[in-house]
Amino acid sequence: MTTQPKYLSDTQMSLRPGILDLGLGHPDPTLLPIEAVKRATAKILDDLGLEALSYGWAAGPGPLADWLRARIRNNEGREVRSGELLITAGNSHALDQLLTLHTQPGDVALVETPTYHLAVRILKDHPLQLVPVPTDDEGPQLDALKQTVTDLKRQGKPPRLLYTVPTFHNPTGCSWSMARRLGMIEVATESGFLIIEDDVYRELAYDAPASPSLWSLAPTGVVARLGSFSKSLSPGLRLGWLTAHASLIEKHTSGGLLDSGGGINQFAAMVVSALCQAGDFDVQVSRFQQAYRERRDALLAALAEHLPTCAVQKPGGGFFVWVVLPDGVRSDALLTRAEACGVSFVPGVKPCWAGGGENAIRLAFSLYAPDELREAARRLGEALIPC
Amino acid sequence: MTTQPKYLSDTQMSLRPGILDLGLGHPDPTLLPIEAVKRATAKILDDLGLEALSYGWAAGPGPLADWLRARIRNNEGREVRSGELLITAGNSHALDQLLTLHTQPGDVALVETPTYHLAVRILKDHPLQLVPVPTDDEGPQLDALKQTVTDLKRQGKPPRLLYTVPTFHNPTGCSWSMARRLGMIEVATESGFLIIEDDVYRELAYDAPASPSLWSLAPTGVVARLGSFSKSLSPGLRLGWLTAHASLIEKHTSGGLLDSGGGINQFAAMVVSALCQAGDFDVQVSRFQQAYRERRDALLAALAEHLPTCAVQKPGGGFFVWVVLPDGVRSDALLTRAEACGVSFVPGVKPCWAGGGENAIRLAFSLYAPDELREAARRLGEALIPC
Repeated sequence: MTTQPKYLSDTQMSLRPGILDLGLGHPDPTLLPIEAVKRATAKILDDLGLEALSYGWAAGPGPLADWLRARIRNNEGREVRSGELLITAGNSHALDQLLTLHTQPGDVALVETPTYHLAVRILKDHPLQLVPVPTDDEGPQLDALKQTVTDLKRQGKPPRLLYTVPTFHNPTGCSWSMARRLGMIEVATESGFLIIEDDVYRELAYDAPASPSLWSLAPTGVVARLGSFSKSLSPGLRLGWLTAHASLIEKHTSGGLLDSGGGINQFAAMVVSALCQAGDFDVQVSRFQQAYRERRDALLAALAEHLPTCAVQKPGGGFFVWVVLPDGVRSDALLTRAEACGVSFVPGVKPCWAGGGENAIRLAFSLYAPDELREAARRLGEALIPC
Repeated sequence: MTTQPKYLSDTQMSLRPGILDLGLGHPDPTLLPIEAVKRATAKILDDLGLEALSYGWAAGPGPLADWLRARIRNNEGREVRSGELLITAGNSHALDQLLTLHTQPGDVALVETPTYHLAVRILKDHPLQLVPVPTDDEGPQLDALKQTVTDLKRQGKPPRLLYTVPTFHNPTGCSWSMARRLGMIEVATESGFLIIEDDVYRELAYDAPASPSLWSLAPTGVVARLGSFSKSLSPGLRLGWLTAHASLIEKHTSGGLLDSGGGINQFAAMVVSALCQAGDFDVQVSRFQQAYRERRDALLAALAEHLPTCAVQKPGGGFFVWVVLPDGVRSDALLTRAEACGVSFVPGVKPCWAGGGENAIRLAFSLYAPDELREAARRLGEALIPC
C-alpha cells in the first residue's frame, strides 16, 4: 500500500497523522487537471490576457456561456435561452447570493434532511426560517412535503424556496426517483416556491448517465439549478454556473455586487473557458469517473467484508456512501473508537440537521486510493467490533 | 492623437463609438500586468499547482497573508496580529459578506454622501436602513455625524456601521483630514458601531504617501478595512483583503460560505501570492502611479483651460476628479449635451445617493491616455458653452 502525502499547505484539507479521513468530501489532489489548467492559462493570457484581467461582464464570459449552453442542450435536452445562465463563483457562493437577492427576512426555506450540512450553514447565515422536509432513498417524501406546505400556508408563511441535492445526493449517494422529482416540481409549481437544485455531482456518474435535472424537467422559473466546476474540474478555481428564469438571473446581474465588481470570478472563468474549448473538460471528467468508480467499488467491497452488519447502498455517482449502523450503535461513540483505530467520517447527525442520524455515517471515497479505502474499511470494522 | 481600441469582449466595459466615457472608473487595460501574471501563474502551477486547484484555507493562502502583513507593517506602522487578516474576493464581495455576517435585518447603516454609488447598491441589497452622513472636502461632517448618532440612539436604533472611502475618495478624489479621521473613530468608539473603511485606492498615491488608514489609527475592533488588488494589480483577479478584529475575521472564516467552499478565490490568491513574492507588485504600482499621475495632470490642465468657470480640486491619488459646475448648470442637462459632443461622465446625483449633487460631475482619468483626456475636456467645455 502506498500512502502518498496528501497534506497541502494553504488548503482546507488538514489531515491528521495516522488517520484516513473519509469525512473529507474532497477530490484527490493528485487527480486534478494541472496540465490542462496550465495550457488553458497560458493560452488565455497569450490571447485574451487583457480581458481576463479586466472587470468582466456581469453574467460571465460569453464563450464559456456558449460552451455550457451547448453542453446542457446535448446532455439534458433543454435549451438554455438568452438570459437564463449566470457564471458563478461555485455553488456555495451562488447559494449565498441567491439567498441575499431572492429572500426577505423571515422567509421560510424548506430544506431536505439529511442534506449537505454546510449548505445548511450558508442558509442559517441568512435571516430565514428553516423548515425540514424528511427524505428517504427516493427523495423528499411528497406527503410530508405537501402537509408541510399546507401547514405553512395556514400559518400565513408560504415557503419561499426548497433546497435539495437530487442527484448523487450528499450525504446518501442516492438519486431522487423520477416520481419524486416530478412530485416536488408539481408542489413547487402549485405553491409558487423556488426549488434550489444543488447539482454539483452531475458529471460524476459511474454506471449510467445522471438522472434528468429538476431544472430540465420543470416549467421555466420553478427551479434554479446550481452547477459547478468544483467536482468536475477543480475546487480551487471557485467556478460554477446557474440556470434559472431570466428574471432571477437578472436579479444577480443587476444587483450591487456584480454591478460594482463585474463578472464574479473573471480570471478563473476565462481560464476555464479556454480549458473547455480545448476539449480538456471531457478528458478530465473521464479521468475522475474512472478513478472514483474504482474507489467506490473498492470501498463497497471492503465494507461488505469488514462491516457485514451495516446497511450500505451503492451510489451511482458522486463522492459518498451512506452507512446505516447496526441497531444500538451510535455514530458519535463509533467516531471516538474509529479515530483511535486511524479512520474518520462524518457522523450522520450533521447532515440530519433537524434531528436523527445517530445511527448513520457518511464516508467519502473521493480522496483516497483503493488500497487506502480498503484499509479504512478494515479499521472501521475493527472500531465497530466492540459495539 | 492615437485612440487605441479599448473595447474588450467579455468585460464590463462597453464603450459607445465616438464617446470618450470618463464615467468609467476602470483601469486602462493596456496598463495591466499581463507579463507578471503570466510569470506568476506559470510558477504557481509548476510549484504549487495542486494547492492552487484544491479547496483553499478559509483565511486565504498563508504566504500571501505573510506578504501583506509585512507590507502593512512597513507602510502603515501597525502590526496585523494573528487572525486579523482575511483574503477576500475584492472589496465588493467583502462588503457583501460583511453585511451578511455582521448585520441583522433592520440595522442602521450610516453611509457618507457623496460616496461610491455602487457600494450603496450592495448595501441596499441587504435588509438595512441606510442613513446619510453629509460629507465635505475634509470628510464626514462630525457635528452632523454626532447629531445623527444621538438622534438614532434616541429612537432606539443605534447605528451598526458606517461606510466610508476616506482615502482618494470616490467620487471627489479628496482624502479625509486627520481631524475628521480621528473624529469619526472617536464617535464610532463611543457609540460602538463598526467603521467599514473602503481603502481600495491606497496604493494609487501620486504626490505623497496616502494618509494613514482609519484601521491603523483606531483601537482594535473599531474599523474593518477593505483592501484590494483590483486597482493596484488587476480587477479581473477579483482579489482583496480585510484587516479587522480577529472576532470579525472569525465570523467569515467560520461562516457557512468559507466552511463549504474554502478560501474564497484560491486560484487567483495563489497567483497573486507568487506575483507579490516575485517583487512584481511594486513594479506594477509604480507603473500605474506614473501613468495615472500624468493623466490626472493632463486632465486638470485641460479642465482649467476648457472649463474655467468650474471648481476643480486636485486629487492626490485614485481615479477621480470632482467638478462643481457653474451656478445654474445641472449635470443631467449637461450629460445630454456632452454625449452629443462625444464625452460622458457620472452625474453627481449618483454618488450623492441621499439627494443633491445636481451641480457636480465625476470624471475618471484612469482609462484614457493624456491626449484623449485633453480632447474629452475640450468636448466637455464645448458642451458647457450653451449653458
